[in-house]
Amino acid sequence: MLPWSADLAGRIDEHIFSSELLKDNPLGDPHERPLLVYVPPGYDDEPGRAYPSVYVIQGYTGHVTMWRNRSPYRQPFPEAADAVFGRGEAPPAIVVYVDAWTAYGGSQFVDSPGTGRYHSYLCDEVVPWVDARYRTLPEAAHRAIMGKSSGGFGAMITPILRPDLFGALATHAGDSLYELCYIPEFGKSARHLRDYDGDIWRWWEDFNSRVPFTKEADHDLLMLLGVSACFSARPDGTVELPFDPRTGVLRQDVWQRWLDWDPVRMAGKHATELRSLRGIWIDAGTRDEWFLDLGAEAFRAALAEAGVPQEIIRFELFDATHMAIDYRYPLSLAWLSQRIASG
Amino acid sequence: MLPWSADLAGRIDEHIFSSELLKDNPLGDPHERPLLVYVPPGYDDEPGRAYPSVYVIQGYTGHVTMWRNRSPYRQPFPEAADAVFGRGEAPPAIVVYVDAWTAYGGSQFVDSPGTGRYHSYLCDEVVPWVDARYRTLPEAAHRAIMGKSSGGFGAMITPILRPDLFGALATHAGDSLYELCYIPEFGKSARHLRDYDGDIWRWWEDFNSRVPFTKEADHDLLMLLGVSACFSARPDGTVELPFDPRTGVLRQDVWQRWLDWDPVRMAGKHATELRSLRGIWIDAGTRDEWFLDLGAEAFRAALAEAGVPQEIIRFELFDATHMAIDYRYPLSLAWLSQRIASG
Amino acid sequence: MLPWSADLAGRIDEHIFSSELLKDNPLGDPHERPLLVYVPPGYDDEPGRAYPSVYVIQGYTGHVTMWRNRSPYRQPFPEAADAVFGRGEAPPAIVVYVDAWTAYGGSQFVDSPGTGRYHSYLCDEVVPWVDARYRTLPEAAHRAIMGKSSGGFGAMITPILRPDLFGALATHAGDSLYELCYIPEFGKSARHLRDYDGDIWRWWEDFNSRVPFTKEADHDLLMLLGVSACFSARPDGTVELPFDPRTGVLRQDVWQRWLDWDPVRMAGKHATELRSLRGIWIDAGTRDEWFLDLGAEAFRAALAEAGVPQEIIRFELFDATHMAIDYRYPLSLAWLSQRIASG
Amino acid sequence: MLPWSADLAGRIDEHIFSSELLKDNPLGDPHERPLLVYVPPGYDDEPGRAYPSVYVIQGYTGHVTMWRNRSPYRQPFPEAADAVFGRGEAPPAIVVYVDAWTAYGGSQFVDSPGTGRYHSYLCDEVVPWVDARYRTLPEAAHRAIMGKSSGGFGAMITPILRPDLFGALATHAGDSLYELCYIPEFGKSARHLRDYDGDIWRWWEDFNSRVPFTKEADHDLLMLLGVSACFSARPDGTVELPFDPRTGVLRQDVWQRWLDWDPVRMAGKHATELRSLRGIWIDAGTRDEWFLDLGAEAFRAALAEAGVPQEIIRFELFDATHMAIDYRYPLSLAWLSQRIASG
Repeated sequence: MLPWSADLAGRIDEHIFSSELLKDNPLGDPHERPLLVYVPPGYDDEPGRAYPSVYVIQGYTGHVTMWRNRSPYRQPFPEAADAVFGRGEAPPAIVVYVDAWTAYGGSQFVDSPGTGRYHSYLCDEVVPWVDARYRTLPEAAHRAIMGKSSGGFGAMITPILRPDLFGALATHAGDSLYELCYIPEFGKSARHLRDYDGDIWRWWEDFNSRVPFTKEADHDLLMLLGVSACFSARPDGTVELPFDPRTGVLRQDVWQRWLDWDPVRMAGKHATELRSLRGIWIDAGTRDEWFLDLGAEAFRAALAEAGVPQEIIRFELFDATHMAIDYRYPLSLAWLSQRIASG
Repeated sequence: MLPWSADLAGRIDEHIFSSELLKDNPLGDPHERPLLVYVPPGYDDEPGRAYPSVYVIQGYTGHVTMWRNRSPYRQPFPEAADAVFGRGEAPPAIVVYVDAWTAYGGSQFVDSPGTGRYHSYLCDEVVPWVDARYRTLPEAAHRAIMGKSSGGFGAMITPILRPDLFGALATHAGDSLYELCYIPEFGKSARHLRDYDGDIWRWWEDFNSRVPFTKEADHDLLMLLGVSACFSARPDGTVELPFDPRTGVLRQDVWQRWLDWDPVRMAGKHATELRSLRGIWIDAGTRDEWFLDLGAEAFRAALAEAGVPQEIIRFELFDATHMAIDYRYPLSLAWLSQRIASG
Repeated sequence: MLPWSADLAGRIDEHIFSSELLKDNPLGDPHERPLLVYVPPGYDDEPGRAYPSVYVIQGYTGHVTMWRNRSPYRQPFPEAADAVFGRGEAPPAIVVYVDAWTAYGGSQFVDSPGTGRYHSYLCDEVVPWVDARYRTLPEAAHRAIMGKSSGGFGAMITPILRPDLFGALATHAGDSLYELCYIPEFGKSARHLRDYDGDIWRWWEDFNSRVPFTKEADHDLLMLLGVSACFSARPDGTVELPFDPRTGVLRQDVWQRWLDWDPVRMAGKHATELRSLRGIWIDAGTRDEWFLDLGAEAFRAALAEAGVPQEIIRFELFDATHMAIDYRYPLSLAWLSQRIASG
Repeated sequence: MLPWSADLAGRIDEHIFSSELLKDNPLGDPHERPLLVYVPPGYDDEPGRAYPSVYVIQGYTGHVTMWRNRSPYRQPFPEAADAVFGRGEAPPAIVVYVDAWTAYGGSQFVDSPGTGRYHSYLCDEVVPWVDARYRTLPEAAHRAIMGKSSGGFGAMITPILRPDLFGALATHAGDSLYELCYIPEFGKSARHLRDYDGDIWRWWEDFNSRVPFTKEADHDLLMLLGVSACFSARPDGTVELPFDPRTGVLRQDVWQRWLDWDPVRMAGKHATELRSLRGIWIDAGTRDEWFLDLGAEAFRAALAEAGVPQEIIRFELFDATHMAIDYRYPLSLAWLSQRIASG
């Protein structure tokens, strides 16, 4: 009866995942996280069958519960994903929705003294837990990861770092080519910080003392603070900004730590890992506000440079901004499910 | 464990409401609708107590399930509403979330041969049903209605039309002063329609044949079609646009039918009804994309002209666009609950 | 040696025109005005030959000296106009550049107690003066008028009012269809006026006390004040705004005075005059900030309604905003010169 | 009689300057250039007096004749400059307006195999020529240079390279902090180049075959081509873009050639030269489209780092974009004239 909804052909299990690695994380965020595991139609009827799995991660400020959000005229992705399998458009797969939210809005799916060990939590805790409780095909060749924006970034770097776990990926407008996606943001943020005497902690205090997202600065500064905490915290957790907030001048040593996390740059150093993958989906909107269409082009070029064969890559730019592109996820999910199917 | 969530102090009952009046509606939309009824903390403990009630309606493209949507750093309104009562910031009230979605995205809460009898469904079916099943104070003096955007419009006109039912209202950026909120939209829509040979039905066919909201025209034309269906359908349901799609020239007779629904103009004709109210909350963001801040000013001026006493009006403009102003709802809910409390 | 410049094939005479009608104008603007008269190549060699004439008027805030302004990669119109004749692309014509600037930025080429008698100055003073000093073909059939924006408006209304003088016109993005071109501006202006307690004279005082055009409000409010002075001054010169500055609500009587000057509405009342014309050029950019592309469509439709034959109309929309469309002027000049040539 | 004009208290001499160094320049641009020399009131009356001089250069796409352009409600700078001296607001100075336009729109006031020897033309030809024909105080201490945008850039680098010639400068929104002012432009340009198969020469051919500035790409690509010709042409004149046009990835070696021209970076290498100056005016609008407000902050910080004393610096950010800030020039001219006055 709900508009644009449907009964599921498969089933979604809602779990509370208790992480050891996230205990005592520096931001005091919960170590218990929601975890959704979807099993495709037929899963319960064929108890001897094992399935490939696809991990789905979110963009900045996302947390797992938001997958339930409904939009007019569109289905939430978990329902659209179910429909892919329900209509037989792709070999059945288990789909795992992982939470990696933090008080700063995100974790970038890395281990950081500034936020916590989200990369290890995903790879060393969630994956084994799912494999133990669901009939997955536990080899990397049958496990994929996908996401949009920061989630697309996570989907690019996680297989690079853990090719033993992930054999395919899909990035939708994933963060890459950092000079283009981040440097313009630094300019905007430096301007915002004028109202806070150049001190991002004064903004953070303000942000927490009033209704959030009622100032234009909020989105930009939250992301700046959060990504800095992920990429350029000191070992003791102190967050360092990649630029001087009064002048916008890059702090080269800090900025280099960010660049070390640029998928375009990582690709060159991880050619072997990337060549081991079975499928890489890359897409973005041609009007992306963070130039992530060029990031996509640059990542593709870096893959070619690294010797990744064209046949495993699916690349597409389409007419869109960074927003409202969730309708792309079912496309990549179907494609990934093909690539990581057994046989 | 969810970020920015909390256990409810009160309780939300989820109903399926079966409407007689919506049966055989012209768009073939379901006549069974979700209906959420919230009872405040203490409701179950004081079985002899009766409560005022506040009806909450939504903006364009909204349907009731979206009240569950979660946003980063903010609470969904039903949770924030509960907190108002949980913290004792307002006298307890029953809060009713009514669905009035249509295939075109909305009903404007009016009876129309183009969409259906949503005004009567709300007033003659939902209200009595709630009164019969919940311990409400069933007089108009203890019943309020509130909403944003199209929901704000609905909140303005419903008490005007049914002062026997509603004794207070809150409009957040509600549609009003139609020359300013609609005419610029007509210009944009006329341009969009060039791609469809001036025929909105060709756009509608296109919209339904592909992923919705992937063209810039979609939002504007959906609203144009929908509001036309609400305000200027012929008795047989044929939708008439208020302007010539090739030139943008107003069709005065059709446009007049729209103007007849402008709260600024309605106020003058319903002075008695408006003077009978106990509370009117009006607010809007100063940068509202539809000039609804001026619409708010104009509505306030029309109320003054109609002799509505200043004391019952709460007026505020604040720095915002039309978006992300949901944080205002708890403020008006608390205020309304004061105004319609017994005694 | 100048980039993008050329020697003239014809000649431009610079005159100071002394107007009796502009003496004692209400704004104290000079009654002596610059007047440029261009004669085409061959004019001096054929002393017995008479020529058609084209009057060129300017958009808001324009004054005649600005025709000398140079832009990168483009020629000033007087040079481009000369090239039209120099290359033999059109029958030779005399081109007259008339000044109608006021302290408020423009006159709309009407007679008004708020600004002065600019319509009569143009028609009853400048035209006879030119005819007396230059070998023009003095019949309306051989006289045209053209302009952009407010100048396009002037080009539309002047032949309507004086078909005895002008037999052809060209309007580039000329002001028309006032609900679309003006009402959105009223919304913006009402907001700007909040900083001035709703009093446009307080803004005017501010504007004159500091560097002009350093506030976002300046352009909008200057145009509002000026056009109000042109269209809706009282007989004693008092300027009346067409809306309540606090609410944006139209003052219907004042607004009607504006509508009476809308070319779309004037066309219906002056069908005979319009049918007497020999050529009407209408164009505009499809992304015009004032919806003047729709204004162009509406004016064309009004002409058709008035029985103006299609053959005398040249209509075109092209991809552009309201800005940087001066390259269109030579096109219409050549076309007009054809239409008003003798024989 | 012209609005916002005035008779000059001083005098402007219009010269044609014939340059040896610009002969056979790679773009075939003229080697004869307009040159305006202004002498202040009193110059002719005191034949024994020598004056300081201020050189004025223009932003991208500017050529000297444009100084004559008139704007509504504002004076052209040469007239406003004259008024500064006419009102006695600053010690009298000679003001020299130098042309450095090229077919690509500008020269950045550098010597380049891609465009020509504009730096040397200015320093080794124009300055001596002026000194020989006008009663200047020919020492660096009495000669300043000023400009906006690219002209501000020229004003920063010329004294750095030729402290023997220039002893003071004023930069209004001058190009600096290249990562912020240029990298976002590269993203936009890479997108524009998609329509030209990544080949800027195909765009250039297109640009020259039609009305210029009728495509959104034109401004961005013209500047990209021109600045590349200035900063990163090979010795044989071949222009190299600083990024891969298909991916937006920086070409580090080419980009480094641009960075070598960044005033923020040059300051550190030319501390001695900068410390020798008598006055440095730096300003920019806080909403500058190229982040040149941050460029201004960064240049100021670089000056401090280089040991330039605070007392010689005048710094200001003001509420504006990059546009319509010509009203700032008279302020800096007066200030510079004070700094370089004799005694």
